[in-house]
Parts: sequence; structure tokens; C-alpha cells
Amino acid sequence: MRQRVHLITLGVADLDSSAAFYEALDWRRADGCPPGLVAFDLYGATLGLYPKADLERDIGRALPAGSGALTLACNVRDRHEVTDVIEAARVAGADILCEPRDVFWGGHVAYFADPDGHIWEVAYNPAAPLGPEDQFCWSGFGGEVPQ
Amino acid sequence: MRQRVHLITLGVADLDSSAAFYEALDWRRADGCPPGLVAFDLYGATLGLYPKADLERDIGRALPAGSGALTLACNVRDRHEVTDVIEAARVAGADILCEPRDVFWGGHVAYFADPDGHIWEVAYNPAAPLGPEDQFCWSGFGGEVPQ
Repeated sequence: MRQRVHLITLGVADLDSSAAFYEALDWRRADGCPPGLVAFDLYGATLGLYPKADLERDIGRALPAGSGALTLACNVRDRHEVTDVIEAARVAGADILCEPRDVFWGGHVAYFADPDGHIWEVAYNPAAPLGPEDQFCWSGFGGEVPQ
Repeated sequence: MRQRVHLITLGVADLDSSAAFYEALDWRRADGCPPGLVAFDLYGATLGLYPKADLERDIGRALPAGSGALTLACNVRDRHEVTDVIEAARVAGADILCEPRDVFWGGHVAYFADPDGHIWEVAYNPAAPLGPEDQFCWSGFGGEVPQ
């Protein structure tokens, strides 16, 4: 598993009011956010706001309210690497919350919890290729080095 | 508030066993971690493992178990900017969990919760200057651009 956090997904009760909060702090949403998700590109990673109910549906279990409704994602470059990471996590003692599967947005995704219950998403996202240093942005790097 | 997550701090029950989990996934701890904290440098950000009890002491309140025992940090370049960010967050509707104060490791820190209860640390860390793109690493950039 590459030493990266590519996406921090905050589960939120109301997408518009949560987005308004971060925009009031002068954050600017990424171009091309689909309905139902607000993404803020950071430095080689992205913070996403996503309805908590949708996040729970994706993981397949209820999440605690508040600061617990959050996942960290590590993306991979190839679909089969999702399984590789999940198998390594299983051997390391992770609780596999959701085995690798295709998801509605075209990716291939699994979830595990670390020994303290912190939830990781392992994701292959064909729409957002990683950069040369395995950095992430919402619109993807497309093989180009960002300037 | 700069559009960055510089430090993701996972509150853990047992530092050694949590560190062993991430090291089993081939992660490599940063040089110079003090006793009581394990840091893994990412890309322009760092993931830290820190005893949950210590994180609760720092914030001044109990955290939920599991995925909720976690903070996201946005660092600033100057001590007085901690107050600036906290005042902006207050205006935006944040719940200020902990007003700006000096902390034992030489920094100046405050905490707020966003509308969904996700907890942010705002930190001035004189030992880890930010890079030219406001990126972070455990040992700091010291004015140099990393190669």
C-alpha cells in the first residue's frame, strides 16, 4: 500500500450547508464535481464532502455521527491492485469492511478498518489517474506533470 | 484558511501495535519522531499515530472511539494566523473546541469542529516550516524546495 492519503471523505448531513462552511473559509471547489459530491483539491490530495447516508451505503454499514463519519482513501493505479492492498491489509490484521467490488461511478473499491477502527477506502478510479509522484487531484493527472 | 490538510492524526489505543500495522503495509516512519508519536510522511502531508488519550487531553474533551478519534490539521506560517483562522471559522459557524494556546511541543494550536463535527486542528509549528506550496513534512522544509 503506497504511503499516501489521496482522498479524505467527510460524511455530511447537508451537502450545501457543509460546502458553504468551507467556501466561507475561502476554499474553492474543484471544477467538474458531480451532483451529490463537493471536492476541494488540496496539495496532491482531495477533500470531499459527501452525504453521510451515501457513504454508509457505499461501505455497507452505519457510521458514527460526527468526526467518525469519515474515510481516508489510498488510490491505486490498476484495478487488480485493490485486491492486492486488501489482501495485504487482511494479513496485517485489518478488518475488511467491504471486499473489492465495482461501483456505480466506474471505479473498483474496497474498505478496511485499521486496528483502531479508522476506515480506509482502497480505490481504483479510472477517471482520476494519479500523478507521477502518486499524487491525486479531482480531475486526474492524465499522465501530465502539474505545473 | 489555506486549502490544505497538513496532518491527519489518528488517535490510537496502542501506539506500537498501530505502528506495526502500517509498517506491515510497507509504510516507513519519518526520521525524528519523538517518543509517543509515529509519523508517516505522505505527499505534502503527514499521517500521525498518537495515543487517543493524549489527543483527548490536547483537545480538552473526549473523542468517540473508532473512526471518530481523528483530527485533520491545517498549519499556518505564523503564530498569529492561528487566531485569524479560528476567527474566520467562528464566523463561518464552526464550534470552537479549543481557543488558540501555546502547547508543550512549542507550537500554537486551536481546534474547531465543522458543522458535521469533523475536528480540525489549526497549528503553527515552528519546528516544521511549510514548503513553498504550503506543503508539509514531519521534519519541515526549512525554506528549501524538496527535490
